[in-house]
Amino acid sequence: MHQEQPPVSGDTVRLKLRRIIFGTDTKLGRYFDISLMVCIILSVALVFLDTVASIHDKYGEWIGVLEWGFTLIFTAEYLLRLYCSAHPIRYARSFYGVVDLLSVLPSYLALFFPGASFTLVIRILRLFRIFRVFKLLRYLSEGNILLRAMIQSGRKVFIFFFSVSLIVMVLSAVMYVVEGPANGFTSIPKSIYWTIVTITTVGYGDITPGTNLGQAIAALTMLLGYSIIAIPTGILTAEISQEISRHKDLRRCSNCLKTGHENDAVFCDHCGSELEKEL
Amino acid sequence: MHQEQPPVSGDTVRLKLRRIIFGTDTKLGRYFDISLMVCIILSVALVFLDTVASIHDKYGEWIGVLEWGFTLIFTAEYLLRLYCSAHPIRYARSFYGVVDLLSVLPSYLALFFPGASFTLVIRILRLFRIFRVFKLLRYLSEGNILLRAMIQSGRKVFIFFFSVSLIVMVLSAVMYVVEGPANGFTSIPKSIYWTIVTITTVGYGDITPGTNLGQAIAALTMLLGYSIIAIPTGILTAEISQEISRHKDLRRCSNCLKTGHENDAVFCDHCGSELEKEL
Amino acid sequence: MHQEQPPVSGDTVRLKLRRIIFGTDTKLGRYFDISLMVCIILSVALVFLDTVASIHDKYGEWIGVLEWGFTLIFTAEYLLRLYCSAHPIRYARSFYGVVDLLSVLPSYLALFFPGASFTLVIRILRLFRIFRVFKLLRYLSEGNILLRAMIQSGRKVFIFFFSVSLIVMVLSAVMYVVEGPANGFTSIPKSIYWTIVTITTVGYGDITPGTNLGQAIAALTMLLGYSIIAIPTGILTAEISQEISRHKDLRRCSNCLKTGHENDAVFCDHCGSELEKEL
Amino acid sequence: MHQEQPPVSGDTVRLKLRRIIFGTDTKLGRYFDISLMVCIILSVALVFLDTVASIHDKYGEWIGVLEWGFTLIFTAEYLLRLYCSAHPIRYARSFYGVVDLLSVLPSYLALFFPGASFTLVIRILRLFRIFRVFKLLRYLSEGNILLRAMIQSGRKVFIFFFSVSLIVMVLSAVMYVVEGPANGFTSIPKSIYWTIVTITTVGYGDITPGTNLGQAIAALTMLLGYSIIAIPTGILTAEISQEISRHKDLRRCSNCLKTGHENDAVFCDHCGSELEKEL
Repeated sequence: MHQEQPPVSGDTVRLKLRRIIFGTDTKLGRYFDISLMVCIILSVALVFLDTVASIHDKYGEWIGVLEWGFTLIFTAEYLLRLYCSAHPIRYARSFYGVVDLLSVLPSYLALFFPGASFTLVIRILRLFRIFRVFKLLRYLSEGNILLRAMIQSGRKVFIFFFSVSLIVMVLSAVMYVVEGPANGFTSIPKSIYWTIVTITTVGYGDITPGTNLGQAIAALTMLLGYSIIAIPTGILTAEISQEISRHKDLRRCSNCLKTGHENDAVFCDHCGSELEKEL
Repeated sequence: MHQEQPPVSGDTVRLKLRRIIFGTDTKLGRYFDISLMVCIILSVALVFLDTVASIHDKYGEWIGVLEWGFTLIFTAEYLLRLYCSAHPIRYARSFYGVVDLLSVLPSYLALFFPGASFTLVIRILRLFRIFRVFKLLRYLSEGNILLRAMIQSGRKVFIFFFSVSLIVMVLSAVMYVVEGPANGFTSIPKSIYWTIVTITTVGYGDITPGTNLGQAIAALTMLLGYSIIAIPTGILTAEISQEISRHKDLRRCSNCLKTGHENDAVFCDHCGSELEKEL
Repeated sequence: MHQEQPPVSGDTVRLKLRRIIFGTDTKLGRYFDISLMVCIILSVALVFLDTVASIHDKYGEWIGVLEWGFTLIFTAEYLLRLYCSAHPIRYARSFYGVVDLLSVLPSYLALFFPGASFTLVIRILRLFRIFRVFKLLRYLSEGNILLRAMIQSGRKVFIFFFSVSLIVMVLSAVMYVVEGPANGFTSIPKSIYWTIVTITTVGYGDITPGTNLGQAIAALTMLLGYSIIAIPTGILTAEISQEISRHKDLRRCSNCLKTGHENDAVFCDHCGSELEKEL
Repeated sequence: MHQEQPPVSGDTVRLKLRRIIFGTDTKLGRYFDISLMVCIILSVALVFLDTVASIHDKYGEWIGVLEWGFTLIFTAEYLLRLYCSAHPIRYARSFYGVVDLLSVLPSYLALFFPGASFTLVIRILRLFRIFRVFKLLRYLSEGNILLRAMIQSGRKVFIFFFSVSLIVMVLSAVMYVVEGPANGFTSIPKSIYWTIVTITTVGYGDITPGTNLGQAIAALTMLLGYSIIAIPTGILTAEISQEISRHKDLRRCSNCLKTGHENDAVFCDHCGSELEKEL
């Protein structure tokens, strides 16, 4: 995102701040990102712990104070981002801009519209803040390999899930007729819930087949789930294998042009000159 | 299917309709297929929602009306297919012809033989209609890779399931003797149901071992299931890997004859001429 | 086994019988093996169904008659094998010889020592008969690939299971201290049972953690089980991949000596001469 | 560890003992390691069995005597190690030195501070002793392949678990709001426990969604868990594949320098000279 912003002559403080806040290539920039991440995780942990009745009764007020602290930090950060961004309006409209605003807005709204369940939903909105951390992941080549493999296998996995959902629907309808409301299969949607619980091998046991025929069909459903679990694994494994070997080919020695180096190689194993560390 | 039907001179309307209804290579043909798929999914969703007691009580009559609407659409479609097919009788006898008939027939039969459970079974028959959608999948190369990999690994997976079913039978008999009817293992078939629930790692918990020896054998069964889950995954992954690399080899550049292009490559990486988009 | 038996001059009936009963290369030999397999499966199915109380009450006598029928068939088969084997004593002492004897002996013993539970254990012994069917599998190249892959990965999987059992023991001891008898963790062996149920993702729910700390450790155990499930899959997949590509190399064209043919190839893709069908 | 210790002239008994106790390259050294491992496993098994109430009541005293026996053996071993080590202080401070001390100290401490729950925690500390066995594994090339594959895939797996934990937190917060304390989701930490139980497909069934919306979200969570289980498998499989083929390349024939031999090959398949057995 920061590459798109051309350097503005003069106003060097703004320029420096921009590199720190939006960039990840300076030491201060990385400290900023890491301390922000810690703040996000701590503020989310606070929201989570506040839902535990015993903790809320004891430390409820302290948690409230700390939360306002985090709200002020995030507000300051949002205003700083608006100030030092080259295109403030473009930033405010971008995905991360909206996420940043959503993470502070709720706390202020809660001042005007107090109410237990409403505040709760608002607090959870802050969770979206965590997704900013993904920005960091983009710079890791490992994340790229995973992401590319997932995109490559996307169409195959879609066809797989489409086929599975057809099978789930047929099995759910059959189980609804065989078992009926007496054994907990009160409707076909409920029966679909049971089929997914079974085919994914979760198996809560809140709804279980009671008739002999139902148990036989359930056993077939399990064996089906057990064997089709192999398909997405197979697809993804094949794609990740390809991505890893392609990644190897991308690390080309600048001296002798040899490719195919190990992932953890520091020197070219042909001529001994140093390799680039990260792609 | 449509390739087998030779063009009949004259009767251009019938010819055009045939391309739209049976083919997928025209824009209208694809619209027809997609809108048909939407109708099938909606009609199936209606059948599913109608089994929820609260929805049936409130909107039961509206659902009945909508279902008759879908029945009429599917009837019109069936008659159109019969009319524009080059070999109407061959179509009527084909797999899809029978499925198409079965999806409309039940609603008419329900007029003459009214009855709750009977209508229910009939409605579920319409589910088979969904399988027509698979026809579309045949044209996706991703589907072909999966299908070929599955056929290739078919014999290996059969041997695997044969061996597993032997182990399941031995374990079931042993658990029946060890645990007995007192702990829910009332018969060997019931014990087989338990073994499948356990070996597939579903684990409902409706039948659980109560004796120490039984729990030890159960633990072994789980570890067995946990490790043999690797076998079908391994078989399929190896075959999918081969299919993907074979698929790559099939994309041959028409200019320089180079193969081995990436799945998402648009141009040949050797001579720069455009590649065919789909196999 | 049959290859070791040298042809005995004269006594051609015995020689022919041997080829049929021990061999699988004649048409009659294959029919014999298949009908024997059907008999074994039917007799085992009878034993299983007889344990269902309602079926035993209704058809118990018929099942008894049928079982004696199967016992007589298996006895005749055992005597035939003894008669036509080149080395009767060596056969009688071999693994399959003992299994064949064990499958008929119990029924005769039951005549002299009648008793419910005793007969039951005896009947289950017949299950071992099924393992003869594995003899057939040895002739399938697919079975060989799987078997070789499993032997190759044997040592790696052993190290894996050794490490897992260490982790299971540590976790079990910790959970026993944290949860204690009040939550069903009455002893460390019981705690090991729980850990295996959890780490294999079976999750019966007959013993579940009740304390907050216990639930946190349980969550870690699950995530551990979820991620280490990848290890045996990875080992076996890598080995199966190697076996499949080695299998390809073994199909050498007898005309042009080219290897690397597809598994389902009938003709050499280089010179067009026919390939051997099975390894 | 033993390579770092230079030979001390004179004192040949100490030198010999060092080779036996620290080394694994002599026959006696291997016997020593194996008998030590058996002692560790037996002593841990005793601690485990002692927690079973019925066994403790019957054989409690005998177990106490045996445990003192093992404590004395381990004490003697620790003193021997201190005596024959080239750098006794360095050994005492090393990881294995501390583990060795921790395995004997508790029993002596229990003499001065008797008490049920305290002794229990102490006894479990001995479990750490088992980790010494891992030292042996380092010498197995199979263990190296697994270890290297795991280290190679470490960063990818970390990114995977980081992403999964974000998804788990969002899903937990949503389920807490949707289901609420009435259905067992008493707090978000409890809700996280449920999400992990579900996403890892363990599925105890101690907390299950009760509302329709909750069951729909639960079904999505399961399908998510079912499909993302493929990712660590894919990563590890790809890395193990690479490690196995690299391992093959390392077995170089000392005569003709050919690499790429099968794992179980004894002779070079090119020139017929014997290969090294282990790396």
